[in-house]
Order: sequence, then structure tokens, then C-alpha cells
Amino acid sequence: MQACIDHIELTTTAPIQLIDITARVRERVRARGLRHGLVTVISNHTTARVNLNEHEERLQQDMITFLQRLVPRDGDYGHNVAPVDGRDNAHAHLLGLFANASESIPVHDGELLLGTWQSVFFVELDGPRPQRQVSLQLLGEL
Amino acid sequence: MQACIDHIELTTTAPIQLIDITARVRERVRARGLRHGLVTVISNHTTARVNLNEHEERLQQDMITFLQRLVPRDGDYGHNVAPVDGRDNAHAHLLGLFANASESIPVHDGELLLGTWQSVFFVELDGPRPQRQVSLQLLGEL
Amino acid sequence: MQACIDHIELTTTAPIQLIDITARVRERVRARGLRHGLVTVISNHTTARVNLNEHEERLQQDMITFLQRLVPRDGDYGHNVAPVDGRDNAHAHLLGLFANASESIPVHDGELLLGTWQSVFFVELDGPRPQRQVSLQLLGEL
Repeated sequence: MQACIDHIELTTTAPIQLIDITARVRERVRARGLRHGLVTVISNHTTARVNLNEHEERLQQDMITFLQRLVPRDGDYGHNVAPVDGRDNAHAHLLGLFANASESIPVHDGELLLGTWQSVFFVELDGPRPQRQVSLQLLGEL
Repeated sequence: MQACIDHIELTTTAPIQLIDITARVRERVRARGLRHGLVTVISNHTTARVNLNEHEERLQQDMITFLQRLVPRDGDYGHNVAPVDGRDNAHAHLLGLFANASESIPVHDGELLLGTWQSVFFVELDGPRPQRQVSLQLLGEL
Repeated sequence: MQACIDHIELTTTAPIQLIDITARVRERVRARGLRHGLVTVISNHTTARVNLNEHEERLQQDMITFLQRLVPRDGDYGHNVAPVDGRDNAHAHLLGLFANASESIPVHDGELLLGTWQSVFFVELDGPRPQRQVSLQLLGEL
């Protein structure tokens, strides 16, 4: 059993955006020849996350509306007074308390163990950003 | 080290329902003889999730009430206009942005590494459904 | 490939509190000599969680305020009438439906695969508590 790392580079174009990265994750699993093991998909950012959900255009807009209403961008946040990273993005950090940084997906017989409607999404919570990164760890027989 | 997959089949009987699957997860770990490793428990559905929480009947009703109030079923969702999967279940997908599809639980000396009050729950968010499935991956010495 | 378990003991001093445990997780990875593998950081409690987020003091206060407002401690919860564990902490269990019990973090070349702003936090949701515990499982070449 071995472990290897791959990265997926992304550009986001909206404040909140869901990008389907299922095909890219699948391609890395095939390229590495992982037959049985675990793929951990982890966002390298505190204000972007990973989620397994359905890929449907109107649903994505529902998700954006829901997230923006639950935690408004212009709330009265102490973090936004003088953010050390230069961004007034407390709302995105707060959403990150619930939305998870990573998902670990089993691989069986070379295939991601996902249900019919499950896609892997990169969830931008503080975009747009020219450069975002997701890391993949493949753990198993390589 | 090896990886193997098992499945747990479930029937749900309410719109939102928590089903304790701890005993079934434990039984699979014992049947496979996993001594040291990691069990990834993953829902194969976008509208059902996995959560580690306390098993107490009144608490489950509190959870149902909380989830229904936070994201009402009858909101104004674009996904519900003409859902590709035939279900007006946007609310369940929105809850799935926060509730996680999977949990990875360490196994040590043949036992799930859970605290005193931690049970593994299947969380139905869009029931009732005659057929739901959770997948388990056991990774370790088998 | 092997698996081993370590524990981190914590004392919390407030109802909701975020404690940065990154240095302690890193220290265990180094002490065990894990070069390539996966570290699963799991709270052994239903009312305390693990989150990857930014370490910034004002942000932590924003998080506390957000969590307290979203799920008030003094809501009308059935669990609080006669809790089996002696604590009227339904609010903490409800937050635990969204905040995750665990995070699995890849280790590459001896280092935790975390982004620049990502720290590992223990999130107390029902403090203060004299004794809390996080378990770490290191899986890989030891």
C-alpha cells in the first residue's frame, strides 16, 4: 500500500460558486492506476470547501441563495475590521464551520464509490479567485 | 494492508429520520476481522447523510424540528420546478451542503474508536424511501 | 503500512471555544515518523467537533457569536427535559449535525497537507469541560 498526492488547480469567477471536479478526480485515480483504496479530496483553503451533491443548474443557484442568506456577507464581523489576509471574508469562514474541507471517497475496482446522483464539488465561498487548489491523496495499491 | 467494501441496506419511513447503524457497522468490522485500520462510512445519496451523534429519542425529534425549520421543504427553490430526478427535494440538497456524506472512523484493536455517547447515524433528509444504501470501506489488515 | 493511535487531552473554559491543536497534531506525526499517509483527527464527543479554519482572534469571536445565534442554548428542546447524560445541551448536538466530528488530513513527506491559512481546531460546543479528548489515527508507513 502506498500514498501519492495530486493537485487540481481552479479559477473561480463568482463570490459563491460550485465547480464539479468529479471527472478530474476520476482521471487522477485512473492515471495512477488505483484499484482499491481511499481518495481524500481536500481544499487547501479555509474559505473554499468540498461537497458531494447533485449536479443540476437550478439547484446550484438555490445553494448560492441559501448560503448568502444564512450568513450575509455584510454582517457585523470583527474579522472584517482588519483582516490579516486582507480580505473581509468572515462570512466564508463561518460557513466553513459547517461545510467540510475534505471528503474521503472509497475506490473499489478502479471506480469512485459514488451514488448515481453524487458529484464531487469544489465550493468557492469567497471568490472570485484566480488561483485555487484542491489536493488529492490516493491511498492504496498503486 | 487491504481494502474491502460492504453495504448496509435501509428503508426509511419519514421525511427526516435518524437511524442508528452503529451495531451494523461494528458487525461488519468483526465479520471482516479488521484489527487496525480505518472504516469510511459513506451515504450513496445526495439527500441522505452520515452523522456521529447521541442516540436519545427526544433529541432525534429536536433534530428533525431543527432541520425542518432551518431549511423549510416548501421554500421557493428553482430545483423544484422540474427536478431531473423527479423529486422536489431542494431543501434536502441544501442541508447536504453542511451535513456530511461520510465519516471515517478509526478501528483500534478490533473496536470502533468512538466516544461513550457517539453512535453512527444514517440521516434521511428526503424520505420516506424504500431503498437506501450506505457503503463501508474497511482499510487495514484484513 | 501500519495504523497507530494517539490522544490529545484538552480542558475547555467557555461554552463555545476554538482551540488550535495544529502544533500538537504535527508533533505526533513527527514523533511517530509518519512520512506518507493519512491522519484522522476525531473528537470522541458528540458535543465537540474538529474543524479546519483560520486562526485569528476576532474571527473566533465571530464564530462563537454565529453559533450561539443560529442555535440558541435556551431553545425549547425535548432533550433538555431529562437528559440521560445530565446536561441540557441539545443546542450542541444540533450544531453537531453540521459541524463534523472528524477531519482526515493527508501527510506528504512528513508534513500535514494544509494550506497557508488552515489550522486544525478542536471546537467545544458544550463547555466548559475539565476533560476532553481528541483521537488521532496515523495510517501509513511508520
